[in-house]
Amino acid sequence: MPSRNVEILDTTLRDGAQAEGISFSVNDKFQVVETLVELGIRYIEAGNPGSNPKDREFYERFKAAPPALGGSMLAAFSPTRRKNTVVEDDEGLRDLLAAGTPVIVIFGKVWDLEVRDILRCTQKENIAMIRDSVAWCRASGREVIFDAEHYFEACAANHDYALSCLQAACDGGASVVCLCDTNGASMPEAILKATSDVVSNLPSDVRVGIHCHNDAGLAVANTLAAVSAGATHVQGTLNGVGERCGNANLSTIIANLHLKYEKICVPEEKLASLAPLARRMADIANLTLPNGEPYVGLSAFSHKGGMHVDGVKKNPVTFEHIDPGVVGNSRRFLLSEVSGRSAVLDIIRRVNPDIARDAPEVGNVLQKLKEMEHQGFHYEGAEASLELLVCKELGLYTPFFSLEKLRIASEQPRSGTFSAYTYIKIMVDSVGEATAAEGEGPVNAMDRALKKAMNVFYPELTHVRLTDFKVRVINSEATASKVRTLIESTDGRQIWNTVGVSNDILEASWQALVDSLEYKLMRRQLGWEE
Amino acid sequence: MPSRNVEILDTTLRDGAQAEGISFSVNDKFQVVETLVELGIRYIEAGNPGSNPKDREFYERFKAAPPALGGSMLAAFSPTRRKNTVVEDDEGLRDLLAAGTPVIVIFGKVWDLEVRDILRCTQKENIAMIRDSVAWCRASGREVIFDAEHYFEACAANHDYALSCLQAACDGGASVVCLCDTNGASMPEAILKATSDVVSNLPSDVRVGIHCHNDAGLAVANTLAAVSAGATHVQGTLNGVGERCGNANLSTIIANLHLKYEKICVPEEKLASLAPLARRMADIANLTLPNGEPYVGLSAFSHKGGMHVDGVKKNPVTFEHIDPGVVGNSRRFLLSEVSGRSAVLDIIRRVNPDIARDAPEVGNVLQKLKEMEHQGFHYEGAEASLELLVCKELGLYTPFFSLEKLRIASEQPRSGTFSAYTYIKIMVDSVGEATAAEGEGPVNAMDRALKKAMNVFYPELTHVRLTDFKVRVINSEATASKVRTLIESTDGRQIWNTVGVSNDILEASWQALVDSLEYKLMRRQLGWEE
Repeated sequence: MPSRNVEILDTTLRDGAQAEGISFSVNDKFQVVETLVELGIRYIEAGNPGSNPKDREFYERFKAAPPALGGSMLAAFSPTRRKNTVVEDDEGLRDLLAAGTPVIVIFGKVWDLEVRDILRCTQKENIAMIRDSVAWCRASGREVIFDAEHYFEACAANHDYALSCLQAACDGGASVVCLCDTNGASMPEAILKATSDVVSNLPSDVRVGIHCHNDAGLAVANTLAAVSAGATHVQGTLNGVGERCGNANLSTIIANLHLKYEKICVPEEKLASLAPLARRMADIANLTLPNGEPYVGLSAFSHKGGMHVDGVKKNPVTFEHIDPGVVGNSRRFLLSEVSGRSAVLDIIRRVNPDIARDAPEVGNVLQKLKEMEHQGFHYEGAEASLELLVCKELGLYTPFFSLEKLRIASEQPRSGTFSAYTYIKIMVDSVGEATAAEGEGPVNAMDRALKKAMNVFYPELTHVRLTDFKVRVINSEATASKVRTLIESTDGRQIWNTVGVSNDILEASWQALVDSLEYKLMRRQLGWEE
Repeated sequence: MPSRNVEILDTTLRDGAQAEGISFSVNDKFQVVETLVELGIRYIEAGNPGSNPKDREFYERFKAAPPALGGSMLAAFSPTRRKNTVVEDDEGLRDLLAAGTPVIVIFGKVWDLEVRDILRCTQKENIAMIRDSVAWCRASGREVIFDAEHYFEACAANHDYALSCLQAACDGGASVVCLCDTNGASMPEAILKATSDVVSNLPSDVRVGIHCHNDAGLAVANTLAAVSAGATHVQGTLNGVGERCGNANLSTIIANLHLKYEKICVPEEKLASLAPLARRMADIANLTLPNGEPYVGLSAFSHKGGMHVDGVKKNPVTFEHIDPGVVGNSRRFLLSEVSGRSAVLDIIRRVNPDIARDAPEVGNVLQKLKEMEHQGFHYEGAEASLELLVCKELGLYTPFFSLEKLRIASEQPRSGTFSAYTYIKIMVDSVGEATAAEGEGPVNAMDRALKKAMNVFYPELTHVRLTDFKVRVINSEATASKVRTLIESTDGRQIWNTVGVSNDILEASWQALVDSLEYKLMRRQLGWEE
């Protein structure tokens, strides 16, 4: 294991793909690989080549045009051979070798109950299945990792048999024997004890691994317990996605191992990419990374309580366990009824650095913000709308246009490509512009019509385009619920975010769209950009 | 501590309220109290009576009309007295006593660094602040819990001083001394060691408590470590909400203590309410409970991989660490490209119990489902749409109406109460009905118009109403993104959920609305209800 204390295997593409709500296209899978390579993850486990057409297509495309893998290696996954056959006749193992990966993960049963009730074969035959399958893959020159399903139940039920299954994998030539807490049922004390036992019983040239699930909220702790018992191979998924309650969260584990235990598991210079890469991974999976995700979440270093904000300003060590920059995250101060003048001042100073702490404008902005929050606005993740609001309160903003008319019409079932159109008339310095646009749905039609009208007066908006659109229902009253829309825009250089709130989704979208264009115009007007 | 092995303090209303995105109204706070009472939580910590108007109003309303608390007690929270004053003159402590709660939580500093840099007073004065404040509250007949901020850093920096601060709280009459891992910085080994040390050094009639944060993903494990070291008082929040990465998740901890450690912390008969009450709590906080939340999440006992589905059917112990019903949750089988015939069959049998495993209809439904999933439909959480789809494939469904015309129009800025109206014409058995409705936004207008037209033919729909509406952007292409809408409906007896997908939000909403009404009609037609 050169230059690493603990090696990492990410199974986002296999165990992660079994999570509710996750469905990777073949292209998505290549993006996952790229992200893991960038983070310097040692082993990237993809699916079972024989299990479904999508996984098969992935391996075929990978072989045809292998992407650059740096120090990472691709691993294919498969069960042992079937009972009462020979490896040469096993279709699953043939598919596995055909996938052409340098590393192979073979999983097998080690729990006497499963051998009896699920496999329905003799204990001896199961041991042969493990040894034969590993040896067959080794014979074709692959590195083999053996995953022992339900190891901790197996060990409690019949310690000697479980251990003899692991020994069979070693006899077959496995370089790693990985203990799986398949059901997430085990407590840290049990993991520690069983892992120590395995480490002291297996040949010293075989690495011991750990694979945990989060059904009891302990996947990270159990993984750390195994590492402290001598495991040097850790399996999990970068954001903890996986069947049921998920797999062990590798972003948390990598940060803990580096920062709390002084173990190296990715090249040290990669640690500062942890948060951005975890977020990219969530994007690929089309998941929202929970704000509270340890180390990498948006809120991981956010402070809201007035006392906390003041404490961090006096000495960050009071409410931050590490420097957020070390994992590529950053500190944020939030606004709310429990936050004080201090947080508001920070935001005003982005616009006007010279303002005094006790200036009346500070109180006005605070008051206005509380009003807007009461209406359901949240400026977290909508900093452009927040800066606009501050500029309005400070008298630095004059409107760039006024709306005369906006009519949105939509028809079901749709008759052509477009299902909606918008008529708009705006005024700029007493010059009117009336126009219209079609769109895929009413929000898209509105966006196009507004842009079309504004471009006439402000050609600098030509390059502005929306890159993300989110909707969240914030108080549920059936179809008249209040919704919040968040829009991300770019001009190719900057990215900014705006927000709208209404019980009419079109009104909320309109507010966020207008803020998006006006923010861009205001930045130029105030000389913040060319 | 009668009839409990470990007592629980929930701080959702105090520490939880400091989480990003959380903002409780005074009414919400009463609902939180009610939920915690129902679960049998011993201590319910509310805010600091002196910190903001909302908390003050809560305590005033609580005193004026106290709700039934069963075996629970309300606790108010405050720092110790300020330095160099006497307790009698401390405004914060006066507000605290005036709140009139039977229990008081006093928090104070025990870390020499903070005494020097944040409080800026002598170590001796800090000890007096702790002892005086606790004693003053005790003197007015309250039970006092002392929260030792940053205890684990404090202990590492100056063990003897940290311990003497705890002793001061005991001298003042505290019944619980709670060790706070305020920054979530500590590892389980350190928590275990420091807690054992405190347990053996404090008077035996004082209970030792633990308060963990999740910054390293270890709040649950750290809490369990403290309990195994002798702590008998546990603080956290029911769903783990809290500043930064959150507090220790009490739903996970309660389940682990009861089911894995045989400790009792809520009345045993309450355990089966854990999942529904955790979900109610998330609703009050307007948060989506993560699907993968241990024990209580929607996916906690969901199976998707074909092998897992088959395994659970043979013997649940293979992929479930506990019986889901014990915590009020339930098992679900999901559909996807990795799930097999077995899961599909289960759903078809809900509609037609007699169908054979190899009937051609099974293959047709599987095929159709894959097509729909490819378009972005997910039937998780939309079982009514799924049953409709199965009935359509099995030839059990005939349409209840046909749509002639649907025109939705919307105007900004809105001129009256309503910002949108819908014109609709439907046909039922060659009889037409044309009508229109206004609404708050286009979805609401569409909902009203459809209901109005359908009621003419199907008066049994009168009692159907929508109770929830969710929107999720599923592939982000700015304002033309594909969205998924989920609608929850009820007729006062049953609740059902339907789904729609389109890059036009109105089209997606229309699909889910139509499914909602047709599902109700189909149930009657098939004789599933009166």
